[in-house]
Amino acid sequence: MNLQNKHLKSNKKIVVLGGDGFCGWPTSLHLSNSGHDVIIIDNLSRRNIDNELEAESLTPIQPMGTRLKVWEEISRRKIDFYNINIANDYDYFLKVIIDEQPDAIIHFAEQRSAPYSMKSPKHKRYTVNNNLNATHNVLCAIVESGLDIHLIHLGTMGVYGYGTAGMKIPEGYLDIEVQTEAGNRIDQQILYPTNPGSIYHMTKSQDQLLFQYYNKNDSVRITDLHQGIVWGTNTKETKMDERLINRFDYDGDYGTVLNRFLMQAAVGHPITVHGTGGQTRAFIHIQDTVRCIQLAIENPPKREERVMIYNQMTETHRVNDLAQLVSELTNGEIAYVPNPRKEAAENDLHVKNDLFLSKGLKPITLDEGLMQEVTKIAKKYASRADHTKIPAKSTWTKEQHPGTLKERATDLVK
Amino acid sequence: MNLQNKHLKSNKKIVVLGGDGFCGWPTSLHLSNSGHDVIIIDNLSRRNIDNELEAESLTPIQPMGTRLKVWEEISRRKIDFYNINIANDYDYFLKVIIDEQPDAIIHFAEQRSAPYSMKSPKHKRYTVNNNLNATHNVLCAIVESGLDIHLIHLGTMGVYGYGTAGMKIPEGYLDIEVQTEAGNRIDQQILYPTNPGSIYHMTKSQDQLLFQYYNKNDSVRITDLHQGIVWGTNTKETKMDERLINRFDYDGDYGTVLNRFLMQAAVGHPITVHGTGGQTRAFIHIQDTVRCIQLAIENPPKREERVMIYNQMTETHRVNDLAQLVSELTNGEIAYVPNPRKEAAENDLHVKNDLFLSKGLKPITLDEGLMQEVTKIAKKYASRADHTKIPAKSTWTKEQHPGTLKERATDLVK
Ligand SMILES: NC(=O)c1ccc[n+]([C@@H]2O[C@H](COP(=O)([O-])OP(=O)(O)OC[C@H]3O[C@@H](n4cnc5c(N)ncnc54)[C@H](O)[C@@H]3O)[C@@H](O)[C@H]2O)c1
Ligand SMILES: NC(=O)c1ccc[n+]([C@@H]2O[C@H](COP(=O)([O-])OP(=O)(O)OC[C@H]3O[C@@H](n4cnc5c(N)ncnc54)[C@H](O)[C@@H]3O)[C@@H](O)[C@H]2O)c1
Repeated sequence: MNLQNKHLKSNKKIVVLGGDGFCGWPTSLHLSNSGHDVIIIDNLSRRNIDNELEAESLTPIQPMGTRLKVWEEISRRKIDFYNINIANDYDYFLKVIIDEQPDAIIHFAEQRSAPYSMKSPKHKRYTVNNNLNATHNVLCAIVESGLDIHLIHLGTMGVYGYGTAGMKIPEGYLDIEVQTEAGNRIDQQILYPTNPGSIYHMTKSQDQLLFQYYNKNDSVRITDLHQGIVWGTNTKETKMDERLINRFDYDGDYGTVLNRFLMQAAVGHPITVHGTGGQTRAFIHIQDTVRCIQLAIENPPKREERVMIYNQMTETHRVNDLAQLVSELTNGEIAYVPNPRKEAAENDLHVKNDLFLSKGLKPITLDEGLMQEVTKIAKKYASRADHTKIPAKSTWTKEQHPGTLKERATDLVK
Repeated sequence: MNLQNKHLKSNKKIVVLGGDGFCGWPTSLHLSNSGHDVIIIDNLSRRNIDNELEAESLTPIQPMGTRLKVWEEISRRKIDFYNINIANDYDYFLKVIIDEQPDAIIHFAEQRSAPYSMKSPKHKRYTVNNNLNATHNVLCAIVESGLDIHLIHLGTMGVYGYGTAGMKIPEGYLDIEVQTEAGNRIDQQILYPTNPGSIYHMTKSQDQLLFQYYNKNDSVRITDLHQGIVWGTNTKETKMDERLINRFDYDGDYGTVLNRFLMQAAVGHPITVHGTGGQTRAFIHIQDTVRCIQLAIENPPKREERVMIYNQMTETHRVNDLAQLVSELTNGEIAYVPNPRKEAAENDLHVKNDLFLSKGLKPITLDEGLMQEVTKIAKKYASRADHTKIPAKSTWTKEQHPGTLKERATDLVK
């Protein structure tokens, strides 16, 4: 059964917000399997968005009730679940925190798709409202509970923007030199100036200011993980039973680039590259995601320490190179389509990730993991795919997606 | 009657969000009097907060209906009014924008008291939710309307934090030098890294990220005015009839430092200095506020230009010096009370404000304006004062305002 020691010396009680999601579910199982007591809070909004988009996970994910029952059968460990909208139901959320007294809260519970966040004013507004109130409510509740809870948040590499001429992106903080009135130059360290590429990414930049503030005013201990694009599907635990399987999004809104390529190749759809594919992005495997989060939990910042920021990524790749790689592995054909995003056609990206490496992370590289993903997941569930959901249809501006003022306005003003 | 030319060549249609407030009302009258067509949108939340706090403007402000009727009688100019919560009623708000087709929108409509924003989790959450959704909805509606509307927003000097060792605070953007991977040093200009001192100030830092994003993605033309603390009460227009009088807040939450001192002296209350009074702040007279906004309207940024940021302040003063000044003018006694805020006891503040000066602003200085304020307003309405509302009771942390976890929790979890 491959289960680890259930009686960790440093056993912690951990609340996972967004624990039904793509990263949250495998993280919950991994931590439970490592001996921690896990409580999931999720409002199932991601499943509801599947309904809205008429899209579905390629993998047959089970309802939360089934997931937890199967996990208890297999592991003899119980995970509790609360269906709470943390952006809206503050009082209930606070009550749970006060009752459960967690040592740590891991916060995945945000709307996380950039294309979804750009679909329409309604989607922009939902993303801003959901993500900012969610994060702020978590911080408020931690302070109000009076408990010394360590908050771990999933941020994104996207807050940095896509690289700065010749600069290696540091982990959250930037060393700068500024000039005083007297003309002297002084060194300072600042939060890296952000340049988010979508409304979704922007909410993560705004989250950072919330963290800075609550850390300064209330000494809340916070770790912010600037994560790259996650690829892969399963982890050691989600493989233990098919009913524990993790979500695999392939649709134009929620599918992330590498998983989309793998799935497209598996079902015989052209591998769709946006623009020239000259964009460079940072990546991490889902198994490394759950390990990084465990490392973050085991290395909390001290009480008066500033917000700890890690770059949670292991490799950078140019999108076009990935398409070539997948094409070679699968004999799939590549199709170049107009880029729906507003961004530079090409960019370089050099990223520091020393903090996790120094704490012992041994990254899973694309080379090792990729073929397994293709055969085990994408091919296996190919028959579940709805090909009409593959194209990315959300555009960043109206010019990219024509439609007259009048039509769009009537759409909105009922 | 002192009315200006009603038929300006560059007559504009201007929507004033928050036009019932302390800055918004005199701005609306000033612009109307300058020949512009003004439309006010306000949800009267500030008056409702007066009900909540059981506090009132020292001056007898009239209901919106009376204000607008009197203004029309005096000026023969009509100002339209819509009662809309711009943070909530997006569809109605968008419809008004599409119907009215304004050239400019001035956005005052946020919860603007730092102490109010720190009162309790409810107040923190209200401030974040109201201010961020308000600003985001305005931006969304501008893009969705398809109109090339110039947005003027009222920010605060407070986003900068209170001064950096020996540095003069620039207008929004900071010149820095960073190091490349190759070891070369390159110059960059970034948005000034913020260090907000309350939840309220933090929402203004977050607003800045919204502006940067919508300016970049949708080329929205935006002017952000980082305003100092406003003092004084009336402007040329609000003096024309007592029923046009402007709001004067003196209570512990909404009263700003200089107006509070003036009022305290006028009613024979000790002049309450927080801590040592070593805090240095930036100030501007309400008459200069309305002039600055007019200058901003007359000097819009070009379509592809970055967000234009002005420091809208004219003087800096140490709080203790202001207390001494008012004390000398009035023979009032000074009382030093514990500081409810979490901040440095002393700070210096050097601020650039060249942009408005170069556009012709002739600042009203404290020296000229102060005595008039004391006698004309504070003394005249002294009998309306409720002395129990004077002390500042909102504290920045629980340690400053003791209360057991249990009590506060039951307060919240009904
Ligand atoms: N997947 C990636 O490639 C990736 C990359 C970088 C960062 N991240 C970040 O990691 C986090 C998790 O991403 P994911 O891919 O697992 O996303 P996901 O959408 O699969 O999971 C998010 C979960 O949060 C829940 N949720 C959302 N709003 C909520 C609310 N108000 N109350 C309660 N629950 C709520 C959803 O129902 C969902 O189950 C996100 O914050 C995302 O920004 C993900
Ligand atoms: N007064 C100052 O000293 C000062 C200093 C710096 C910056 N500012 C900024 O200037 C702006 C105006 O300040 P003020 O002193 O006039 O504040 P105020 O509270 O007197 O006015 C704000 C107005 O906005 C309205 N409002 C708030 N939320 C709204 C919403 N969701 N929908 C519609 N209307 C809403 C309120 O009812 C109120 O009439 C604020 O943004 C403030 O941050 C003020």
